[in-house]
Amino acid sequence: METVGATLGEVRPGFVEIALRPGPAVSQQHGFVHAGAVSAIADSAAGYAALSLMPAGVGVLTAEFKINLLAPAAGDRLVARGRVVKAGRTLTLAQAEVFAEANGQEKLVALLTATLMRIEGRDGVSD
Amino acid sequence: METVGATLGEVRPGFVEIALRPGPAVSQQHGFVHAGAVSAIADSAAGYAALSLMPAGVGVLTAEFKINLLAPAAGDRLVARGRVVKAGRTLTLAQAEVFAEANGQEKLVALLTATLMRIEGRDGVSD
Amino acid sequence: METVGATLGEVRPGFVEIALRPGPAVSQQHGFVHAGAVSAIADSAAGYAALSLMPAGVGVLTAEFKINLLAPAAGDRLVARGRVVKAGRTLTLAQAEVFAEANGQEKLVALLTATLMRIEGRDGVSD
Amino acid sequence: METVGATLGEVRPGFVEIALRPGPAVSQQHGFVHAGAVSAIADSAAGYAALSLMPAGVGVLTAEFKINLLAPAAGDRLVARGRVVKAGRTLTLAQAEVFAEANGQEKLVALLTATLMRIEGRDGVSD
Repeated sequence: METVGATLGEVRPGFVEIALRPGPAVSQQHGFVHAGAVSAIADSAAGYAALSLMPAGVGVLTAEFKINLLAPAAGDRLVARGRVVKAGRTLTLAQAEVFAEANGQEKLVALLTATLMRIEGRDGVSD
Repeated sequence: METVGATLGEVRPGFVEIALRPGPAVSQQHGFVHAGAVSAIADSAAGYAALSLMPAGVGVLTAEFKINLLAPAAGDRLVARGRVVKAGRTLTLAQAEVFAEANGQEKLVALLTATLMRIEGRDGVSD
Repeated sequence: METVGATLGEVRPGFVEIALRPGPAVSQQHGFVHAGAVSAIADSAAGYAALSLMPAGVGVLTAEFKINLLAPAAGDRLVARGRVVKAGRTLTLAQAEVFAEANGQEKLVALLTATLMRIEGRDGVSD
Repeated sequence: METVGATLGEVRPGFVEIALRPGPAVSQQHGFVHAGAVSAIADSAAGYAALSLMPAGVGVLTAEFKINLLAPAAGDRLVARGRVVKAGRTLTLAQAEVFAEANGQEKLVALLTATLMRIEGRDGVSD
């Protein structure tokens, strides 16, 4: 997350927010944040939301995710909000919405759905 | 692609290869390449494969992609191979397989499916 | 929709509900509604939600969808609630949640995300 | 599968073929096979391909699938060919291509990617 310049925001059980301040390192040729960086913060927000509901000593691994890119990711700040849809024994389904903030307004730019697998004996999110 | 240290490999109509040499900037806490970087090269390989079939002056935009992460992305080199499955008038479906190379062996670590939309009057891949 | 015994419920701009009463024709070997039928009502709910925002004489076509199956689809009634997430010029993103009702309780059994393409000069949902 | 009139074709380890003869019960208002029926045979082909690699007494469950609908599913016969991409301990990734046959020619009409979960002590495909 350091590489893309992401920072952790609000965290509560089943919900995690990750923000990113757009800059040249994560932007593509048209000045928008690259889909790879948008996906990275969305996937991480979903993964940490899933992890927030796990007991200590249990980690999660992203088995798969799908992302719809809805609008160019441009603005002063990008924020990914991940929330758990269903926490199962082995698999957890989480979603993350990514918003671009510009002039005090938020705009939905991406929607991600991720399937996370519970991993015993390994802490953290193994992305 | 510079941020993650990716380089272009083989390019032919409907097929594009993008490689990445794993390093600290793209790795997560367990030493594997982060899912965000794996997704970025897979999505770019799929996008450039789609673009390779477009006439000059026409660009493509990723509308959505889905990626399955099959094994830890570890090794000396990661290579994403994108190929067009179906080139339609408005939408193109492309797939990318990501392989990790270690000790002269390749292992499939991810499979991506992407829907790309044709954009008139804008060159390149707008990720 | 007749084949699976589905009926239209609440309809408002950007929102459509489709219900199904489980029976042998749509059930698999364990007595649950088959994923194909769950997907069919979810996809239709998403498609009609998208269509509800289109002008007359314009149709929609499902380009792709993804569905997570969260729990066995068992109960007295299944209901798919589709809503538009983002209506674009060419593409619309819609989601549908499928709930199973049993003993007066609703349980989320599936979550679908669909990309719908606008089709000029063709009415309805072309699934 | 009976409801949609599907029949089993070739079966070998990691590969299963399921065919369907289009008729009014599975067709939508434009005479094409409904996306729900296309998804059902594609999902089943992927599921049985995964099951074909499991030991006796072990079943599989579709955790999620994604399908791209590439062309109208019209013709004399639809055939879904499922194959395992990666068989893991808990999760198996499988893909299915759906072809429409008309006038002795095959045309790709859909591509499905599915994540199947291994279920101990339950035979078959729990769709």
